[in-house]
Amino acid sequence: MNKQVKLDDYEVGYDIPAAIGMDEKDIQTPCLIVDLDAFEKNVETMRAFCEKTGMRLRVHGKMHKSADVAKYQIEKGGGCGICCQKVSEAEAFARAGIKDILVSNQVRDPAKIDRLARLPNHGARAIVCVDDEANVADLSAAAQKHGNEIECLVEIDCGAGRCGVTTTEDVVRIAKAIDKAPGLKFAGIQAYQGAMQHMENYDDRKAKIDIAVDMVRDAVEGLKAEGLECDIVGGGGTGSYYFEGNSGVYNELQCGSYAFMDADYGRIKDKDGKRIDESEFDNALFLLTSVMSHAKKDKAIVDAGLKAQSLDSGLPKVFGRDDVEYVKCSDEHGVVADPDQKLKVNDKLRLVPGHCDPTCNVHDWYVGVRNGKVETLWPVTARGKAY
Amino acid sequence: MNKQVKLDDYEVGYDIPAAIGMDEKDIQTPCLIVDLDAFEKNVETMRAFCEKTGMRLRVHGKMHKSADVAKYQIEKGGGCGICCQKVSEAEAFARAGIKDILVSNQVRDPAKIDRLARLPNHGARAIVCVDDEANVADLSAAAQKHGNEIECLVEIDCGAGRCGVTTTEDVVRIAKAIDKAPGLKFAGIQAYQGAMQHMENYDDRKAKIDIAVDMVRDAVEGLKAEGLECDIVGGGGTGSYYFEGNSGVYNELQCGSYAFMDADYGRIKDKDGKRIDESEFDNALFLLTSVMSHAKKDKAIVDAGLKAQSLDSGLPKVFGRDDVEYVKCSDEHGVVADPDQKLKVNDKLRLVPGHCDPTCNVHDWYVGVRNGKVETLWPVTARGKAY
Repeated sequence: MNKQVKLDDYEVGYDIPAAIGMDEKDIQTPCLIVDLDAFEKNVETMRAFCEKTGMRLRVHGKMHKSADVAKYQIEKGGGCGICCQKVSEAEAFARAGIKDILVSNQVRDPAKIDRLARLPNHGARAIVCVDDEANVADLSAAAQKHGNEIECLVEIDCGAGRCGVTTTEDVVRIAKAIDKAPGLKFAGIQAYQGAMQHMENYDDRKAKIDIAVDMVRDAVEGLKAEGLECDIVGGGGTGSYYFEGNSGVYNELQCGSYAFMDADYGRIKDKDGKRIDESEFDNALFLLTSVMSHAKKDKAIVDAGLKAQSLDSGLPKVFGRDDVEYVKCSDEHGVVADPDQKLKVNDKLRLVPGHCDPTCNVHDWYVGVRNGKVETLWPVTARGKAY
Repeated sequence: MNKQVKLDDYEVGYDIPAAIGMDEKDIQTPCLIVDLDAFEKNVETMRAFCEKTGMRLRVHGKMHKSADVAKYQIEKGGGCGICCQKVSEAEAFARAGIKDILVSNQVRDPAKIDRLARLPNHGARAIVCVDDEANVADLSAAAQKHGNEIECLVEIDCGAGRCGVTTTEDVVRIAKAIDKAPGLKFAGIQAYQGAMQHMENYDDRKAKIDIAVDMVRDAVEGLKAEGLECDIVGGGGTGSYYFEGNSGVYNELQCGSYAFMDADYGRIKDKDGKRIDESEFDNALFLLTSVMSHAKKDKAIVDAGLKAQSLDSGLPKVFGRDDVEYVKCSDEHGVVADPDQKLKVNDKLRLVPGHCDPTCNVHDWYVGVRNGKVETLWPVTARGKAY
């Protein structure tokens, strides 16, 4: 079911956290707000990088799960399309009109393979990753059944330690199987080094990506020797895009977090030792929260707890304030140390989430703000699309 | 907007993870399944305890956020009503027909207070917590504006370190203000000791609750001396209900997790040193996941990562298996150590989530299973209702 979003159908407070035109101070919390100026600046920064380096940018839709954000990144930010991690996300993006979609993940369940093969019925290019020759026959059968083409990337595990093969021999073997399979098209390589993205030191990240680039170069050459060209050599994230972008091997970036940023990416340093939330991308995503109790003198209790964010990468930072600190989180509450009693009940704080992806994943809406006013509301289109 | 759930409107795979009658092996993963036999047994265990001790049971709806689960707990499990933590949750439960609702939390935002005061328009009793005399006038004005009554509990912080006052003097002062305020009714005390629920050792938990019981007893007597009777003296969770239930002071329990259980509660011990997932409540909630890659011999990659669960209380346990172990979690993937290569692609595992509340909070559906078949689907009615 393709749910059409009509804001007029929704009740402010119950269904949606804000109304367009509302002051930021009246937004119902906790909810996610997007600073539109910062977001647009981040999108432009990455567009300019890709223009300069000649890279394609396939924006990672798994980060925000929003068709509105993806469309802006494509229309204004130079994106060629999106990647995402789940078939249901791909379905949501395709139904919302995105035309070029990579499921940057393995799809093995028979029903999911069938759903993947139907993506082109929505007008979308369908690309998927493969790390097992046994997957090829199933993908081929589904593509033929629906009369659609599925493009396949062979996934290389270049350090993340999850899916993917680790030798050029395996890459070539699987690529050949794809190339021979009716309904499938061999489209290249997926090689995302996820494990190093959050290393704080630039040289540490570079050392890891050098290994990845060598693996990918070897695979591309091995494929070429067998007459197999890579349309896509994809990877790269917010902590590494300049490495892949200047590698001479990758041709497509898959950055996600750059558009919103988070506290964890904010901690990593660029080549000059500056934090990238100062030198490259601004914090555009905030978890807006309100003080709901100040019964203890030295601490304020706020309304954003575990159910409004993910703590996997640490506690959120209070944005723009050094006088208070978010120090503890339970299901529904946050404890903010307020040693100088600066906060009052109903004061609002902008929190920078520890990790944007799983934090976006618990919210239904983004409230776009500019100059203290609500300018837009974007549904988290693919929220709950986990399967 | 009160969304009516008609399963016929939904597409299996995209909108919902399963169809009624389907085999468990065909469910689209990752998703939450509820073992209905275990769930019903847990509900009956708590009902019998409350019957024996003469306690009222106000089931905690914040845990599951499901109107269907709450209604079962009320109709079959002896529940007098529910508690929840957010006004939007209360609205969702009220619109679904629950008639007795405690927002076991402070409500301070003017728009939220107004929404709270409209809850009785849905036919529901509305109860809320107060820890600040400054809140009383706002609640009273909203209640009068809408011609409804709001019942108020004074919240005591008996160890959780969040909201709530800490002296009988403060309790009495706030209770008197409530008692005098038009539109409000003083209804008693809220005293939930959250911080000790997960202490593994029974005697450690008992030591903490003894302190809470003393505080609550003193407050009840202080109120009585001023002519204020407590209709509700509420608190108690899955790790402590027998303490409050036998205290002679509390009269209403607020247990939530007992119905589903999780890995964290599973670790705590009863008075005989037995884990309570063996002696009291069965694991009824599982995160069903599928193997999606086994490109590395010694580890299987499954499709349930950070976006399908909360890691705040640790990694999930693989249910019923000692031969494999969930050892690592990233956004979309879990790594399952499989030293003996027992797992194959598309094998399914039942994971016991580390912490049920925030895990339920990321899912849209519960799939109720019995004897390997899908018997029912319950929407997570109040999912996303954070404000």
